[in-house]
Amino acid sequence: LTSKLPNVGTTVFTTMSQLALEHNAINLGQGFPDFPMSEELTALVCKAMRDGFNQYSHMNGVPSLRDGIAEKVSALYKTNIHPNEQITVTPGGTYAIYTALTTILQPGDEVIVFEPAYDSYIPNIEVNGAVPVRISLQYPDYAIPWQTVKERLTAKTKAIIINSPHNPTGVVLSANDIQQLKNLVEGTGIFIISDEVYEHLVFDGLQHESILRYPELLARSFVCFSFGKTYHCTGWKIGYCIAPSALMKEFRKVHQFNCFSTDTPKQIALATYIHNKDAYLSLAAFIQKKRDYFKELMSGTLFRPLTSHGSYFQCYDYSAVSNEKDIDFATRITKEYGVTAIPVSVFYKDGEDNKVVRFCFAKQEETLRLAAERLRNIK
Amino acid sequence: LTSKLPNVGTTVFTTMSQLALEHNAINLGQGFPDFPMSEELTALVCKAMRDGFNQYSHMNGVPSLRDGIAEKVSALYKTNIHPNEQITVTPGGTYAIYTALTTILQPGDEVIVFEPAYDSYIPNIEVNGAVPVRISLQYPDYAIPWQTVKERLTAKTKAIIINSPHNPTGVVLSANDIQQLKNLVEGTGIFIISDEVYEHLVFDGLQHESILRYPELLARSFVCFSFGKTYHCTGWKIGYCIAPSALMKEFRKVHQFNCFSTDTPKQIALATYIHNKDAYLSLAAFIQKKRDYFKELMSGTLFRPLTSHGSYFQCYDYSAVSNEKDIDFATRITKEYGVTAIPVSVFYKDGEDNKVVRFCFAKQEETLRLAAERLRNIK
Ligand SMILES: CSCCC(=O)C(=O)O
Ligand SMILES: CSCCC(=O)C(=O)O
Repeated sequence: LTSKLPNVGTTVFTTMSQLALEHNAINLGQGFPDFPMSEELTALVCKAMRDGFNQYSHMNGVPSLRDGIAEKVSALYKTNIHPNEQITVTPGGTYAIYTALTTILQPGDEVIVFEPAYDSYIPNIEVNGAVPVRISLQYPDYAIPWQTVKERLTAKTKAIIINSPHNPTGVVLSANDIQQLKNLVEGTGIFIISDEVYEHLVFDGLQHESILRYPELLARSFVCFSFGKTYHCTGWKIGYCIAPSALMKEFRKVHQFNCFSTDTPKQIALATYIHNKDAYLSLAAFIQKKRDYFKELMSGTLFRPLTSHGSYFQCYDYSAVSNEKDIDFATRITKEYGVTAIPVSVFYKDGEDNKVVRFCFAKQEETLRLAAERLRNIK
Repeated sequence: LTSKLPNVGTTVFTTMSQLALEHNAINLGQGFPDFPMSEELTALVCKAMRDGFNQYSHMNGVPSLRDGIAEKVSALYKTNIHPNEQITVTPGGTYAIYTALTTILQPGDEVIVFEPAYDSYIPNIEVNGAVPVRISLQYPDYAIPWQTVKERLTAKTKAIIINSPHNPTGVVLSANDIQQLKNLVEGTGIFIISDEVYEHLVFDGLQHESILRYPELLARSFVCFSFGKTYHCTGWKIGYCIAPSALMKEFRKVHQFNCFSTDTPKQIALATYIHNKDAYLSLAAFIQKKRDYFKELMSGTLFRPLTSHGSYFQCYDYSAVSNEKDIDFATRITKEYGVTAIPVSVFYKDGEDNKVVRFCFAKQEETLRLAAERLRNIK
């Protein structure tokens, strides 16, 4: 068999989680919370199963959940989305991104990807025979160099992938970034894939600049969301995609023959729980407190924090601690100090290494305290 | 946007289920049971959620579930499967088939597909730029014409998709069919995608000829299974794929960036429940009884049953009732008589119409009784 993805190994999240497990390390690598999720939400799932909602849902998602999503995004982002035509519930945000890219990409198409990039984007492009056009975000601020983007557009540019809050850096796009994006794509046929799985994790009083706020951009976008990240249940694999009707129609052709539909009892439960506004509106403050707590603890170390205004993550420059390659460093601190981080170089195709590792701070205070204590000892 | 699937409309299952809903018809169309699933299994899912198993599982599946699957297939099919290297848990059987085809297909490759074909196969091939080579199963027995298959092989033939028990016909492959398949592929590089989601629904004392029983064939196969079909919970979207290590390695590259992982609490629950042998060993007798009951009821009508030795389905020839096209007939009986079936012509790309509709008999006796009563009145 000729591999379609010859450059792909096992994702770093799996590799590092396995390593953490083997060395009994505190896992601040893969992005998932270690605190319990809502008991109200799990009880709703149990009720849905008991009530017999165990057969196929509508392939685009349970109608009442899509109605709830439309209501929510209308209130949050001041936009009217047609629940039947523009929303599809998916088994997770990663799946939504994959399906969107597979919907639009033909062999030879180019896609602009900003690095460091969540590690599914480039394989998603390549598996469709398309070509990633990689642009480095500028360390240490990781801002998008819009002039460079402009210079890299060609007649083959089919799409741009944006991601805010950004994984792995925690950088949040500003209204100015969106304006630049608008200028850039105006008059072109370029599509936007917007990965917004951390939409509710924007800190420091900033606003999440969802593509949903910008009708001119939404008209060419697939916007991808995650219930797992919002409700502390990453293992539930449930999210959704919003797009204009004509694009969603094509997305659904791929979706209906990829997974076909998404878990029914969870959708029924979420159709109720989504109306609990406090559950998502309180999230940013709750998680920001963890970021701040971890930062304070880490101020006792030689790790230097980079800016994170969102997501589950904060990157740290460890150059004052070691000049090892980040992969070696991350491996060593797992083995020797019992704390696992994600090396950021893996999110660059050419392995660009700025001596930065990513920590997930979506953890209980006790976990963060213990991790920082161990990290203080690192030489 | 240039559609990648210009010939694809909404799947017939969704269309007919919607029509059934609108007309308050008894839905014997889409394949799902209307009786309750195991309370023990739903209770296990609730326990898993309460116990905190709500974060990402291993991307290949919860290890204890993969161990359970290996144990099960070893006992059932007398084959040793390596749980870490050869099994991946997926969000459903349809997803497993999609991912397998996407793993192997390059633009221009040819894939042998038998029609009537489950409606995801051809779009799965086409979305990868490959070419379906369609071969009609011979009405009314729907046997595979092996000589024709042989004649249709070319240097470009990359794979053959088989499906037993067969959807929509209920036909079950025999040991002789498998022997023919073996002769056919021997010495070639042709892969086999084996859709075995109805593995436990083989009737009349026949044996399910799983590819897992044939090591020489398994060496070139992706074998796809469904927990949803086995445990009466089609809406849970959980299944798995088994393949030789080298093929599974490539499958996982696609999977890890498609859905990444499958629902955790359900996997934890299934890791226990899979050891309940009776739950699946009793299934064939339980469902066969429904097939027989429905057949007996239908003997009071002008519908003529075709042979079904497996699956949830039985096809009926309605030519003594009407000479309408099957789509028109299926639509009309939904609207006028309140019973929904699936027209079989939709499973042929050229719409071959033998005046056959498919009924799903995985229903409560009361449902089947009421449906047959209505069908008796059809003119
Ligand atoms: C899909 S596993 C990775 C989870 C995640 O989003 C991350 O750690 O970046
Ligand atoms: C995935 S929806 C269709 C269910 C099914 O397998 C069938 O009805 O044939």
